[in-house]
Amino acid sequence: MSQCNRRRFLTLGAAAAAAAVLRPTPAQAAADEVARGVTRTLAKYLVNARYEDLPAAVRKEGVRTLLNWVGVAVGGSGHETVQRAVAALAPFAAPPQASLLGRRERFDILNAAFINGVSSHVFDYDDTHLKTIIHPAGPVVSALLALSEYRPISGKAFLNALVLGIETECRIGNAVYPEHYDIGWHITGTAGVFGAAAAAGCILGQTEQQMAWSLGLAASQPVGLRESFGSMNKSFNPGRAAANGLFAALLASQDFTSSDGMIEAPRGWANTLSTRHDYRQITEGLGQRYESALNSYKPFACGIVIHPAIDAAIQLRNQHALQAAQIASISLRVNPLVLELTGKKTPQTGLEGKFSVYHAVAIALIEGAAGERQFSDRAVREPQVLALRERVKTTIDAAVKTEQVDMTITLRDGRTLHTFIEHARGSVEVPLTDRQLEEKFTDLADGILPAAQTRALMQACWQVEQLPGAAAIATAAVPA
Amino acid sequence: MSQCNRRRFLTLGAAAAAAAVLRPTPAQAAADEVARGVTRTLAKYLVNARYEDLPAAVRKEGVRTLLNWVGVAVGGSGHETVQRAVAALAPFAAPPQASLLGRRERFDILNAAFINGVSSHVFDYDDTHLKTIIHPAGPVVSALLALSEYRPISGKAFLNALVLGIETECRIGNAVYPEHYDIGWHITGTAGVFGAAAAAGCILGQTEQQMAWSLGLAASQPVGLRESFGSMNKSFNPGRAAANGLFAALLASQDFTSSDGMIEAPRGWANTLSTRHDYRQITEGLGQRYESALNSYKPFACGIVIHPAIDAAIQLRNQHALQAAQIASISLRVNPLVLELTGKKTPQTGLEGKFSVYHAVAIALIEGAAGERQFSDRAVREPQVLALRERVKTTIDAAVKTEQVDMTITLRDGRTLHTFIEHARGSVEVPLTDRQLEEKFTDLADGILPAAQTRALMQACWQVEQLPGAAAIATAAVPA
Repeated sequence: MSQCNRRRFLTLGAAAAAAAVLRPTPAQAAADEVARGVTRTLAKYLVNARYEDLPAAVRKEGVRTLLNWVGVAVGGSGHETVQRAVAALAPFAAPPQASLLGRRERFDILNAAFINGVSSHVFDYDDTHLKTIIHPAGPVVSALLALSEYRPISGKAFLNALVLGIETECRIGNAVYPEHYDIGWHITGTAGVFGAAAAAGCILGQTEQQMAWSLGLAASQPVGLRESFGSMNKSFNPGRAAANGLFAALLASQDFTSSDGMIEAPRGWANTLSTRHDYRQITEGLGQRYESALNSYKPFACGIVIHPAIDAAIQLRNQHALQAAQIASISLRVNPLVLELTGKKTPQTGLEGKFSVYHAVAIALIEGAAGERQFSDRAVREPQVLALRERVKTTIDAAVKTEQVDMTITLRDGRTLHTFIEHARGSVEVPLTDRQLEEKFTDLADGILPAAQTRALMQACWQVEQLPGAAAIATAAVPA
Repeated sequence: MSQCNRRRFLTLGAAAAAAAVLRPTPAQAAADEVARGVTRTLAKYLVNARYEDLPAAVRKEGVRTLLNWVGVAVGGSGHETVQRAVAALAPFAAPPQASLLGRRERFDILNAAFINGVSSHVFDYDDTHLKTIIHPAGPVVSALLALSEYRPISGKAFLNALVLGIETECRIGNAVYPEHYDIGWHITGTAGVFGAAAAAGCILGQTEQQMAWSLGLAASQPVGLRESFGSMNKSFNPGRAAANGLFAALLASQDFTSSDGMIEAPRGWANTLSTRHDYRQITEGLGQRYESALNSYKPFACGIVIHPAIDAAIQLRNQHALQAAQIASISLRVNPLVLELTGKKTPQTGLEGKFSVYHAVAIALIEGAAGERQFSDRAVREPQVLALRERVKTTIDAAVKTEQVDMTITLRDGRTLHTFIEHARGSVEVPLTDRQLEEKFTDLADGILPAAQTRALMQACWQVEQLPGAAAIATAAVPA
């Protein structure tokens, strides 16, 4: 017997374990009963849901999601990460079916979906579903907008598909979060591929069976491990999830088959990629409650978990007109996740700076902002920033929620300044206003699109529901 | 809690294990020390290994692997699964850079790699690395041959990359098998993507750093869940693994970055996708022992675990000139894995028939063969086959190895016939001869390529090391 075979026998308890796979216990059978039909139930909902069914508030948030996504995709389009991806794929991408936002190349829809997904996440400045830390628009809208250039669809149908795609990925995310994420998966890429497949499947007019296969082929292509955070591989993930989901939907529309129960089967996606799942999160209240209505938009160009700390730093700075030279130390009490995700003490690049609460707090105190400029290579090497970030001390405290921070700044004159952030700016509770979204968009598009084009593009996003063809948004985002 | 989850908890110890991810114990820290540099060590080996270093036996087995893969890819090229995939992708695939084996379309190299990977696995008739049940050639050769049509390479460099790609995927598979497979992953798609990335990276002349990123981007794109077995999604997996690995290598060659330790990091591939790993399987004896030399080729067009049963059935049939009408019952003692993987009692389609030991034994007894024709829709619906398969009885016995079977046939006249198979035809111990490989190839290509072209194509495979350009193999596999 080979070494591997021997290991298999030792590990599984041989016949007993194998038999158990075939004959579930009553408790397992009951769980299986609950699980039955999760993929099918979702598929049935997706192919029957109509734009007219969407509540006004859901439509409104969908439009804000679109506007925010277009802004970050245009803003990121010139980043070195995107340049390298475009250079790598240009020889193989054709025919020129779909726009690369903020750029002049046109790629086939699969490669365009990938590139736009990378652009939209490269600044870590996109939207966030706070319950799961999924960045919903990247996978979904990247796939959808590229497809809309090949297969004309109305703005209303586009918005409906956008909402349904986000609904799909966030509900599947809810079902396995946080265990799935804790294991090591980049949930935006793993749940996102379902969202892209669902959205594309809606536009392609799939039957319920085809939609179930779309979800099955999506389940076969999860993308992204958290280990790659801090490298270009992070923004790769939503881009590849968009392309994979679109790929799944295109095949399923030709009746390329999969299993009907890929989400919930004993060896399906949830059991293989997570230690826990709650399928009711996927199937309960479909068409009644909308996860997409809970989407949020970042005011700061970095991971969401440091936003409370940045907000606190900017508030104290502005209230007390602080100068870096006055500050002796900054003490933060933060949720453990903050250090787990953004604990880099000495970031060397702008990209690494996004994973450093130390850098983020220092630069926010010095510059009063945390936009893309504050996470440049220049910013993380600024001597004044380096000096201040060494004075940032962190204490982890599980009693502090991820959306909170407790900050105390001790000044050289002995005074202490304190603030506690309950919800940072950009959260669901303190959302960015439409005006703030426009300011963020304008700042991102500056230098890429002429000002008049930027205004026209924002207008197209706000009025997506009136557009006869949603592709107009993509073409309006190409530099004139 | 599902069976799969329970197993994972039993294995990991739930919260303790989760905490351990954050704060390693001394023993784990020691293990991490061993693990350090796994990705880097592999990358360094891959970029330095040369054709001239390969032992003659390894070269020979590499050539046999190539020949077998070309035969199954040509043979599968007209299957409905491939037709649907080609129809789905044709509008988006361009420029015409690479051949689809056995077909007249030409696609860009990424889509061609996908289609050829699907063709080569659709009959479940391809090669097998028995230690891991990985089908090594699908992901690796599909990527490599497509790339060779875009980037000219000598036959020697091609064969070297083929061996190195297989080495990569099988060693990574060895490190996590069987736990990774038991959880639910289709290991051919999850380990295969590394093989495709490594092989492509070799041809692209990557630096060690670029190769580490290739492996990192590959780690971000695992493909395939066992739940989809029996549907078109199964052959999707090696195809998509080929395309994903090639995609990873193309990006890394443009310095698109990833983590340097994506295989072994605490939140890297092995820890996220498996409950166990043995990194020595990856790094020990590189350039000294070759997993690719252990490759095996199927004489029967179905999952390897039923091969002993088929071999036994054909042997008893031929030795005793058996007719179905004589047979009262067939009793099999098999390893538990046989029923776990191929326990379908009433397959409805040819594809499902490949996952039915009952069908396989019945048809082998009736027709004396188990090629693609014996797993057609026609075959699984034949009344005589249905009648005989109901007389097949199975007993699972962990003492029977996966490569063995114990078969007793009871005849209506009261006689019993018995055989015990130690190693089935097609195993490493009883390998197919070169002549048998040619017979298999010829049978597969029949009806797709003219006989003279089939002979010329086999000749090109056998003489790959003398070819100035390996692309000649791809073009020789296109119907004249």
